[in-house]
Amino acid sequence: MFSGFNTELQTDLQLRWQQVQQILRQRRMDGLLVSTNANLFYLTGRVYMGFFYLPSTCQPWFFVRRPNTLQGERVVSIRKPEQIPEILREAGLPNPANLLVEGDEISYSEWQRFSVLWESTVCHPDGSQILRRCRMVKTPYETSIMRLTGSRHADVIKSYASLYEPGMSDQEWTVAMINRMLQAGSLGLFRVAGNSMEAFMGTVLAGDNGGAVSPYDFALGGAGLHPSLPVGQSGVKLAPGMAVMVDIAANFFGYLTDCTRTYAIGKLPPDAYHAHDTAIEIQHAIAAAGQPGANCEALYELSLEMAAAVGLSHCYMGLEQKARFVGHGTGIFINELPVLGVRSKDVLQVGMCIALEPKFVLPGVGAVGVEDTYLVTEDGMRSITPSCQEIVTL
Amino acid sequence: MFSGFNTELQTDLQLRWQQVQQILRQRRMDGLLVSTNANLFYLTGRVYMGFFYLPSTCQPWFFVRRPNTLQGERVVSIRKPEQIPEILREAGLPNPANLLVEGDEISYSEWQRFSVLWESTVCHPDGSQILRRCRMVKTPYETSIMRLTGSRHADVIKSYASLYEPGMSDQEWTVAMINRMLQAGSLGLFRVAGNSMEAFMGTVLAGDNGGAVSPYDFALGGAGLHPSLPVGQSGVKLAPGMAVMVDIAANFFGYLTDCTRTYAIGKLPPDAYHAHDTAIEIQHAIAAAGQPGANCEALYELSLEMAAAVGLSHCYMGLEQKARFVGHGTGIFINELPVLGVRSKDVLQVGMCIALEPKFVLPGVGAVGVEDTYLVTEDGMRSITPSCQEIVTL
Repeated sequence: MFSGFNTELQTDLQLRWQQVQQILRQRRMDGLLVSTNANLFYLTGRVYMGFFYLPSTCQPWFFVRRPNTLQGERVVSIRKPEQIPEILREAGLPNPANLLVEGDEISYSEWQRFSVLWESTVCHPDGSQILRRCRMVKTPYETSIMRLTGSRHADVIKSYASLYEPGMSDQEWTVAMINRMLQAGSLGLFRVAGNSMEAFMGTVLAGDNGGAVSPYDFALGGAGLHPSLPVGQSGVKLAPGMAVMVDIAANFFGYLTDCTRTYAIGKLPPDAYHAHDTAIEIQHAIAAAGQPGANCEALYELSLEMAAAVGLSHCYMGLEQKARFVGHGTGIFINELPVLGVRSKDVLQVGMCIALEPKFVLPGVGAVGVEDTYLVTEDGMRSITPSCQEIVTL
Repeated sequence: MFSGFNTELQTDLQLRWQQVQQILRQRRMDGLLVSTNANLFYLTGRVYMGFFYLPSTCQPWFFVRRPNTLQGERVVSIRKPEQIPEILREAGLPNPANLLVEGDEISYSEWQRFSVLWESTVCHPDGSQILRRCRMVKTPYETSIMRLTGSRHADVIKSYASLYEPGMSDQEWTVAMINRMLQAGSLGLFRVAGNSMEAFMGTVLAGDNGGAVSPYDFALGGAGLHPSLPVGQSGVKLAPGMAVMVDIAANFFGYLTDCTRTYAIGKLPPDAYHAHDTAIEIQHAIAAAGQPGANCEALYELSLEMAAAVGLSHCYMGLEQKARFVGHGTGIFINELPVLGVRSKDVLQVGMCIALEPKFVLPGVGAVGVEDTYLVTEDGMRSITPSCQEIVTL
C-alpha cells in the first residue's frame, strides 16, 4: 500500500482487493496484472505509471515506473515490466499459471509483452470485464465520495442560470458554466470507457442541435464545434423558444457524477413542458421501481412504456438515432456498468451509482428532460444530485 | 470521401492516403484498417464511430457505425465490423492477405475480433507506428491549421498576465486562463498518445511544485490537485518570489500547439533570470541548428551541453526525475513524433511541427524556461507561437 492514505481509504482498498481475489479464486486464476490509469486508481488509490499485481491469495505488489518518489509496503521501483517476475520470485511468490490482464483496455502490443513475462503463464483477457463489474458496486469509501461529488455538483448547477446573458451563443454560456464548475474545484478530466468515446466536460444542446446525431454512444449527441470532436454545443445563438439541455459532469475527487437540467429561452410550446414533465415522471418511476434485485432491462422497458403511454415514443431518447438505454452506472468513468437498456441482464445492487436520464427531442424546440445520479440503497434509489428539476426560464 | 469538405481538404486527404499507400506497398501489405479517433480524423477529416479501410492500390472505404447520417462516396453504414468483408467482396475487392491494424492502440479484444474478419488474412500490428510516422510530417493543409492554431494560441497567452490577481492560488489563476482559452474557441480536448498519459488542458507549476514529480511522461510534472490526476497545479497560494510556469495547450481545430511562458510573482533571485535566459538561448540554438536533415538526438545533446556550459545540468529538465528530451512533435496528439531526446534516430524533415521546451527547476523558486511550437521549413525552424519570451513580472 502507498504511504500517506488515511485509515478509511486503507481499509476500503483492502476490501476492493478481497472482492477481486474472491473472483480470481472462483475463476481459478492465480493473479491479476493491472496497468491502466482508471483501474490503478481503483485498486491502489492513486494514478501512477506502472503495474499493480494482485495474487489470488496474498497481498498485492505495486510496481512503479513513475514517479520515482512513491513509497510504501511492497512498493517497488522498476524500469520495465520484464523485471516483475524476478522481483516476485525473490520474494518467494510462485509464478502465476493463469494470469488475468485488462484485455479490453491494454493494447495488442502490451498484451504481447505481458503474455511472455512469465515463461509458462497463460494470460486471460477478462481482467477488464471483471474489474468493470467490481467497479459497478461502490464500496463505502467510494459511496461517500460519490455523495460528496453529487452534492457539490448540485450546488454548482444552481448558479448556471445566473451566468446566462441574452445574446449568448450555446458555446459562450457553456464556457461560463464550465468556468464555474472548475472554480468549484472540478479537476475537469472526463474519463470515459471505450476507445471510441470522448468528450470535453459534457455537452450543452440548444434548439435543434439537441437532435443532431453524434459518433458517440451518449444519450444524446449534438453536432459539436468541429469535426474533430463532433459532440455537444454547435456555436448556435441562443434564441427565444429554444430548449437548452445542460449536461456537464462533475469530477472533484476522481469520481464523476452526471446531472442534466433543461432551460428555456423565454417560453416554450406546451408540448415541451409536457414532455419534460413526462421525463421527470419516468425518472421518478424508475427510481421507485429500482429496488435491489430489480432487472435493469425491465426498468428501461418501463420508461419505453411510459413514453408510449403519452404518445411520445417517436421522440424519446433521440429522433434519427435513439439511445437504447435510459440509465448507466457512473464512477471513475462516466459510463460504468450497469446499463439500464436493451439486453442488460444486470439487476440492481446496493451500492450501485446510476445516472437516470430520460430525455425527449422536440423538432423546432430542442431537447428536454432530466438526469440525476442515484445511489441504490436497501430502501431503493436515492438521488445524490438533488436540485430543482423543472425547466428554468432564462 | 465524406461529403461537405472543401477542395483543399479533399486534395489533402488524398495526399495522406497516397503517402500511406506507398508505405503499404513497400511493406507488401494489402490494406490498412483504422478504428481509433485520432487516426480516423487524420485519414478521413472527421471523427466517427467505425472503420476506415485503405487498400494499398485503390480508393478507401468508410464504414460508419455512428452517426447514421454521414454520406459520401464509398461511405457505408454498418452495425458491426463483421459486415466489412462481404461489402468489399460485393464491390469486387480481393481479400487482403496481409492487413495492417493499429496494434499499439486497439485493445487486445479488438485485435482478436479484427484478426478473424477475413478467414485467411494475416494481421500485422504495425499500423500504429506507420501512421505515427506519417502524422509526424504535416501536409500543406495540416501546416496551415498548425500555423493558425499557433497564432491564436500566442494571442491568448498575451492576456494571461491581466487575469492574475494578488492572493490567487495557482488553481484560481489556472481556471481564469483556461476560461480565456475556451472563450477564444479552444475545444478543450487534450489528446495525448499512450495509455498511461492524461492531463486536463495543460499544467501550471508554481514555486516548488515545479519540481514535484508525476507519473506522466511530460517535460515537468507537478503534484496536481488529487491523486486521481497527479499532474500540474497543486492548489498552492501564489506568493512573492515564486516562478510560475504556464503550459496550457491550444486546440481550436483538432490540432494542438504547445507553448509555455514563465511568470514571476514580484522579483525572483538573479539565478532564475539567468536560467531562464539560458533556456531561451538553448531554444534558439536548437532552432538555428534545426535544418532539415539535423539529427534529433544531436539537438537534444546540444541542449545538454549548453546547460552544462553554464553549470546548470543538475536542474535542467527537472531535479529528482528528469525528462530525457527537450522537444517533441505535436499535432493531433500533444505528443507526436519526433522526440528530440535520447536514442532518437529521427532527423528533421520539412513539415514537422516540434515543441521545443528547455526548462530548469530551481529549488525554492520554481520552474523557469520556455516552450514554443516550431515548424521545420526549407530554411530551418520557425516559431508558430510567437510572443514575448521574457519572464513576465506579475
